[in-house]
Amino acid sequence: MTVRMSEMTWMEFDKKIKDGAITILPIGACEQHGPHLPLNVDTVIAEGFAERLAGRVGAVVAPTINYGYRSKPLSGGGPLFPGTVDLSGETLIHLVFDILEELIKDGAKNIIVLSCHFENEAFVCEAVDLVSQKYGNKAKMLIANWWDPMPVEIIDQVFTEVPFPGWAFEHAAVTETSLMMAMAPELVHEDRMVDTQGVTPCPYNIYPVPADAVPETGVLAPARSSSAARGQLIIDSVLIELEKMCSKEFK
Amino acid sequence: MTVRMSEMTWMEFDKKIKDGAITILPIGACEQHGPHLPLNVDTVIAEGFAERLAGRVGAVVAPTINYGYRSKPLSGGGPLFPGTVDLSGETLIHLVFDILEELIKDGAKNIIVLSCHFENEAFVCEAVDLVSQKYGNKAKMLIANWWDPMPVEIIDQVFTEVPFPGWAFEHAAVTETSLMMAMAPELVHEDRMVDTQGVTPCPYNIYPVPADAVPETGVLAPARSSSAARGQLIIDSVLIELEKMCSKEFK
Amino acid sequence: MTVRMSEMTWMEFDKKIKDGAITILPIGACEQHGPHLPLNVDTVIAEGFAERLAGRVGAVVAPTINYGYRSKPLSGGGPLFPGTVDLSGETLIHLVFDILEELIKDGAKNIIVLSCHFENEAFVCEAVDLVSQKYGNKAKMLIANWWDPMPVEIIDQVFTEVPFPGWAFEHAAVTETSLMMAMAPELVHEDRMVDTQGVTPCPYNIYPVPADAVPETGVLAPARSSSAARGQLIIDSVLIELEKMCSKEFK
Amino acid sequence: MTVRMSEMTWMEFDKKIKDGAITILPIGACEQHGPHLPLNVDTVIAEGFAERLAGRVGAVVAPTINYGYRSKPLSGGGPLFPGTVDLSGETLIHLVFDILEELIKDGAKNIIVLSCHFENEAFVCEAVDLVSQKYGNKAKMLIANWWDPMPVEIIDQVFTEVPFPGWAFEHAAVTETSLMMAMAPELVHEDRMVDTQGVTPCPYNIYPVPADAVPETGVLAPARSSSAARGQLIIDSVLIELEKMCSKEFK
Amino acid sequence: MTVRMSEMTWMEFDKKIKDGAITILPIGACEQHGPHLPLNVDTVIAEGFAERLAGRVGAVVAPTINYGYRSKPLSGGGPLFPGTVDLSGETLIHLVFDILEELIKDGAKNIIVLSCHFENEAFVCEAVDLVSQKYGNKAKMLIANWWDPMPVEIIDQVFTEVPFPGWAFEHAAVTETSLMMAMAPELVHEDRMVDTQGVTPCPYNIYPVPADAVPETGVLAPARSSSAARGQLIIDSVLIELEKMCSKEFK
Amino acid sequence: MTVRMSEMTWMEFDKKIKDGAITILPIGACEQHGPHLPLNVDTVIAEGFAERLAGRVGAVVAPTINYGYRSKPLSGGGPLFPGTVDLSGETLIHLVFDILEELIKDGAKNIIVLSCHFENEAFVCEAVDLVSQKYGNKAKMLIANWWDPMPVEIIDQVFTEVPFPGWAFEHAAVTETSLMMAMAPELVHEDRMVDTQGVTPCPYNIYPVPADAVPETGVLAPARSSSAARGQLIIDSVLIELEKMCSKEFK
Repeated sequence: MTVRMSEMTWMEFDKKIKDGAITILPIGACEQHGPHLPLNVDTVIAEGFAERLAGRVGAVVAPTINYGYRSKPLSGGGPLFPGTVDLSGETLIHLVFDILEELIKDGAKNIIVLSCHFENEAFVCEAVDLVSQKYGNKAKMLIANWWDPMPVEIIDQVFTEVPFPGWAFEHAAVTETSLMMAMAPELVHEDRMVDTQGVTPCPYNIYPVPADAVPETGVLAPARSSSAARGQLIIDSVLIELEKMCSKEFK
Repeated sequence: MTVRMSEMTWMEFDKKIKDGAITILPIGACEQHGPHLPLNVDTVIAEGFAERLAGRVGAVVAPTINYGYRSKPLSGGGPLFPGTVDLSGETLIHLVFDILEELIKDGAKNIIVLSCHFENEAFVCEAVDLVSQKYGNKAKMLIANWWDPMPVEIIDQVFTEVPFPGWAFEHAAVTETSLMMAMAPELVHEDRMVDTQGVTPCPYNIYPVPADAVPETGVLAPARSSSAARGQLIIDSVLIELEKMCSKEFK
Repeated sequence: MTVRMSEMTWMEFDKKIKDGAITILPIGACEQHGPHLPLNVDTVIAEGFAERLAGRVGAVVAPTINYGYRSKPLSGGGPLFPGTVDLSGETLIHLVFDILEELIKDGAKNIIVLSCHFENEAFVCEAVDLVSQKYGNKAKMLIANWWDPMPVEIIDQVFTEVPFPGWAFEHAAVTETSLMMAMAPELVHEDRMVDTQGVTPCPYNIYPVPADAVPETGVLAPARSSSAARGQLIIDSVLIELEKMCSKEFK
Repeated sequence: MTVRMSEMTWMEFDKKIKDGAITILPIGACEQHGPHLPLNVDTVIAEGFAERLAGRVGAVVAPTINYGYRSKPLSGGGPLFPGTVDLSGETLIHLVFDILEELIKDGAKNIIVLSCHFENEAFVCEAVDLVSQKYGNKAKMLIANWWDPMPVEIIDQVFTEVPFPGWAFEHAAVTETSLMMAMAPELVHEDRMVDTQGVTPCPYNIYPVPADAVPETGVLAPARSSSAARGQLIIDSVLIELEKMCSKEFK
Repeated sequence: MTVRMSEMTWMEFDKKIKDGAITILPIGACEQHGPHLPLNVDTVIAEGFAERLAGRVGAVVAPTINYGYRSKPLSGGGPLFPGTVDLSGETLIHLVFDILEELIKDGAKNIIVLSCHFENEAFVCEAVDLVSQKYGNKAKMLIANWWDPMPVEIIDQVFTEVPFPGWAFEHAAVTETSLMMAMAPELVHEDRMVDTQGVTPCPYNIYPVPADAVPETGVLAPARSSSAARGQLIIDSVLIELEKMCSKEFK
Repeated sequence: MTVRMSEMTWMEFDKKIKDGAITILPIGACEQHGPHLPLNVDTVIAEGFAERLAGRVGAVVAPTINYGYRSKPLSGGGPLFPGTVDLSGETLIHLVFDILEELIKDGAKNIIVLSCHFENEAFVCEAVDLVSQKYGNKAKMLIANWWDPMPVEIIDQVFTEVPFPGWAFEHAAVTETSLMMAMAPELVHEDRMVDTQGVTPCPYNIYPVPADAVPETGVLAPARSSSAARGQLIIDSVLIELEKMCSKEFK
C-alpha cells in the first residue's frame, strides 16, 4: 500500500494512525538551484527521504509543503533570483502550526517534520514549539533534515574530488545534485553544470541583499563529481540514521 | 517542455515569465472524499486542470498548495473526519498572499489562482484583494475553479442517472469521482463506492459541528454513474471556458 | 420589555441570560444599494429580522455590527462605490470572535449570528469556529441569514413580474427593496428606482476589480415590482423558518 | 436632509464628501451603567453628540461602532459585569483602522473620531496613528470625546449637589445620567438610581480583576442631582467647543 | 546580594522565586526629554524605583524593557523628535505578554509591572489582561508607576516655585528632572535647562501630528526649581506607597 | 562623550546621526548560563562589543533589547531552566522591526544589529528583511555577532586546554566565560565553575523538550581554562574584524 497520505482514503489513513503509525510532514521550497537543477530540488529530496523512510518504518507521509522560508544569499542564493518564491517567517510558522494541530486532532502521536530547505529550520521549530505548548504530551514531534544525521565519514566519501564547502554552501552543489541524480534523474541537466568559483563566505548578513552577493548562476559551490552513486550513498547512510532516530524516540 | 514551474530551472522560468506567460497557482486540500476516493482529490483536480490549461495557453504552473481552508460539513464533510487537515482562514490568506507577492516580484503579470476546494474561495479572494491593494496594476489576477465555468448543458449531460444535488453537495459524488477517473484512475476504488442517501440541506451553520451532520462515510451525494468519459466531458468543456477566460482577460 | 440588549440595564440582561434566553447578534454592512436605497440596508434588515425573531422566541438582540466584509462586485457592487466601507477578513474574524467570547463569558449558551450581508459568511463562520474550538460545548452557535431559510415557493410568489436572478445578484433589487419598504419605508426612494439591465455573471473573480464590472448605479438586478407587501411576505415566511430553527436547535 | 451616512444613498454620501463635508465616526461601548441606565449609554451619547455636531457643521455621521475596548474596574466597572461586552485592544485597533482607511479611499479628508467610552482612547489613537502613517496628509483626523472639551466652569455648574469625583469615576453618575436624560430620557430609570458610596481610588491596576473592586451595582459615583437640564447644559457647552475645534482644524 | 535578576545565576533566581519573592518588571522608553535630560529618563527612573523597592521588599528586578509605546505630543513631545524610538501598540502588548508568561512558567506568583512612561499604560494593561485570562489565579499582577501613588501633599511640597502643570505635561519638567538629579545626577545637564513657556493643552488629538504641537526643545513645562532634594522627597514618599501596595496585595 | 544613545539628549543624538554616525542595536537574552555566570551574559557581551566598537568607529549604541528568542536545549539549555525568559518568534520580529523603523525615520542610514544570543539570528534577519522591503535603500543594515567574525586561528589560541566543541555548545563555556571575565569580572563566580561532561549532540530537534536533554547545571561544555586574558584576545580580534566590516560596508 502507498505511504502517501494524499493517496489514501480517510478510512485507510484513520486505520494507519490508530495502528500507531508515525506521520512525516515533508517541507521543501521553490528556490533557484542553478542552471542544471530544477526549482523543486528541496521538495523532491524532502519527499524522497520521507517516502523511503516511511517505507522502512511503516509511516504515513502527509502532503508536502511546497514553499519554504526566504532563501538567504549565502545558503540558497537569496530572493533576487526569479523562480525563488518564499514565504515570510510568520506565514511558515502558522502554516506548519495548523497542519500539525490538525494531525494531532486526527490522532497522530508521533510526527516527524522533515524539512530539506536550510532556511526553514528556525521557523519550523517555532511552529512545533507552539504546537507543543498547546498540546503537551499528546504528541511527540521531531524536526529533522538529511544533512545533520549524515555521518561524517560519508562526507569524506562524497567529497573526494571537490572540497566540502560546509553545509550552507552545499547549494546546487555535490550533495544536492547527487541526490537529485539518484532520486529524480530526469530533472537534472548534467550538461548545464557550471564550474562555479564558489562564493566568499561573509561573517555577517547584509540588507538590502546586494545583487552581487552570489555568482549569477546561483550555484554556491561546484557540482562537479556529482553522481547517482554518491546520491545513493547519502540516501542509504541517512536513512539508517533516520531509522535509528525513529527507534529511539518513538518506542 | 514541462509546464511545471517546479521542474524548470530558474533560468527557464525566468524566460517564460519574460515572454509574458501566464502563471497558474493550483490550490487543493487534504480532505476526506468518502471510501472510494483519496484525500487529495481537490489537489489532483486542481493540478489536472492547471496543467491541461497551461499546455493550451503556454502558461507556467506554480507548485501546488496542498492544504486548504476548513472543510465544512455540508460541502466537504467537515473537520471531524480523520484525514481532513485544514488551514485556518488567516493562514490561508497569508500563504496565498506571500506566494502571489513573490511571483509578482519575479515579474509575473498575469496570474490565475485555480482553487478546486469549495471552502477556499473567500480566503483566496481576500489574499488576492490584499495583494492587489499593494501592487495595483502591476499584475492582473483571476480566481477560478472548474465548476463555475462549466456550461449548464454539461450538467445535464453528466447527471443523466442521478439528480444534480447542487455544487456544495457534489462532494465525492458524480463530478469529482468522474474527474478522478479521467485524471488519476489508479486512485479511484470503484468497488468501494457506496450509495449514500444524501444529506439533508440545512439553511444555517451549526457550531460545534454536530457529529451526525453528514453520513458517516463522508459522501454527500451518490457517485453512482461516475465514469472516466463523464470526467473527460467535464474536462473538455471547462478547459474551453478557461481558455476563453484567458483570451478575454489577458490580451 | 425591549428585546434590545443595548437598552437593557446590566441586571435586566443578566436575568434574561440566566433565564436561558437566546442571544442574537445582527451583522449588517455599510454598502451601496443603488440610488433608491440607503447604505444601511443590510443593517436595517439584520436588525429587523433579529428584533422580530427575538419578540417571538424571547431572545435578546445584542448591539449590531454596523460594518461588514468587503463588498464584491457581483454580489454587492464592490469596493469602488463611495459609501461602501468594508472591513478586512481578519478584522471581521476578530471582531465577531471577541463579541461572542464575551457573550459566552456572560453566560450566553444559545447564540444566533444573523448576518444579512452576503460577503460576511465565510469570515463569520471562521470566527464562530475559533470560538467553538475554545469554548467547546459551553455554547451552541448558529449562523443564519434570511435568504437561505426562505422557502422556494416564496421566491415564486415574490418574483412574479421580474425573473429571480439568483441570490448574489439580488442586491438592491426586489427582495431587499421590498424588505426595506416593509421595515423602514421612510428610507426608500421609490422615485429613484432605475431599471437596470442587470449584470453579466462572470464565473471567476478579477483583481484589480474592473471599474466597469457593474452598472454605474450599483443596482445588480431590477427592483421593479418591489412592494411592502412582498417584503412582509418574505418576513413572515422567513420568521417561521427561523423559529423552527430555534425550536430544533435550542431545545 | 439626514446627517446619518447610514441613511444616505451612496450618491448622496458621495456628494457630501465631494463638497468637503467632515465625517464623524462615533464609537460607543456595550458596558454596564448601573441599575438605572442601559448598556448603550456610551453609544447613545456618542451618537447624540455626533449628530448634533454634524447638524451644526454640515458633517456626515458614519455608522457607529457599538462595542468598545475592555471596561476597566475604576472607570467602567470592569469585565465582570454581565452585559459588558468588550473588544480586545488589537481588534479595536484594526476595526478603527479599516473604517478610516475606507473613508479616506472614498474621499474623506476631514475626519473626527468621537469616542465616548473612556477606555477606548489609547487604541483609537493607535489606529489613527497607523492610518496617518499610511496616508500622510491625505486626511486630517481628530480624536475627541465630550469630557475633555467641556469647560471647567460647566463642571462647577453641574456639580452643585454632589462633588465632582474626577472623570474616570464619572461612570453612570451625574454627567452620564444627565446626558441620557437629555438625549434619551425613555432609557433612564430614575426610580432605580442608587446612592452609591463611591469607590476607593486605587493608584495601580490589579489582575486578575478583584470581584470586589467596585460596588456591586456598578455605579462608581452618585447620580443624585442628575437632570435633563444639566445634561442640556453639558451638551450646549461641549458643542460650542467641538464647533470651535472644527473651525480651527478644518479650515 | 543583588536584586537584579540579570546579575543572578539561574540557581539564585530560582531560589528567590521558590522563596516567594515578588518579581518587578521595569518598563521605560527611549524618548526625548529636552536639552538637559538624556533619552533614557523613563528607563532610569523605572529601574531606580524598581531596585529601591526590591531592596525593601526582597523582590527580584527583571531585565528592563528599554523601549516604550509611541510618545504623544502632549505628554512626551511626540514622534517627530529624533531620538524618540517607539514601539507600536501590538508590539508592546506581545512583548510584555511573552515576558510575563515566561516568568509565570518559571514560578513567579507575584509580579509588579513598573512602567514609568506615561503612554505605556493602556498597552501594558492589555498585555497583563491577556496573561491573566490565560493563567487565571496562578499569578497576581500589579501595574504601577510612580506618579499615581505619590501623595497629594508631596505635589505641594515639590511645586513651591513653579505651578504643577498636571501629570501629562510633567515631561522633562520638575519631577522628572528632580528624580534624575537624585538617581543619576551625572546624566543631568543643569546648565542646559531652558525656561519653556509651556504648551497649550489641547482637548483632542490631531493626526498627522502637527510639527508645532510642542515647543521645539521638547520640554513641556518648566524644570526650574528641580533639585536632588525634591527628587529624593518624591522617591521616599512613593516608595512608602509602593511598599504599602506590596503588603496589601501580596500577603 | 558617551557612545550610549540612552545617555544622550535628543539633540546630541540628532547631531551624531546627521553627522553620519553608524547606529548599533545590541540584542542579548535573559538565559541560564550555568552556576557560575549570570542570566545576562548575552546582554553584557552584546553591549560590551557594541560600546567598544562604537568607540572605535564613532558609532551610537541604541538601548539594548534585554530579551531574546527561545533558548534551545543544545545551544542554550532550553526553556526548562528557571530564569530563562524567552520571546516568541513573532514578538522578536516585531520588536526589532519597530526599533529599526524608528531609527530610520530619525535619519539613521547605517545600522548594525549586534545579537549575541545564538537563537536570535533567524528572527532578527526576518525583521531586518521586512524593514528593508519597506525602506529599500534608505538604510543599510548589517546583522552581526562576535563568533562568526572571529578568526579561526584565535579559536586555536583560546582552546589550548579543552577542545573546541563547536559554536552551538559554546554556552557558558570557555568563550563566554572568558568574555565575561574580561568585560564584567564582578559577575563571574569562578568558584562555582563545574566540569561538565558535555552534552551529546543530537542531529534533530525534539518536542516537547526532554527534561534530560542537557546537564542539569545548564553548562553545555567545560568552562575550564577560561580567563580574562583569553576573553581580551577574543575581544581584540573580533573588534578588528567588526571594524573592517564597517569600513567595507559603510564607506
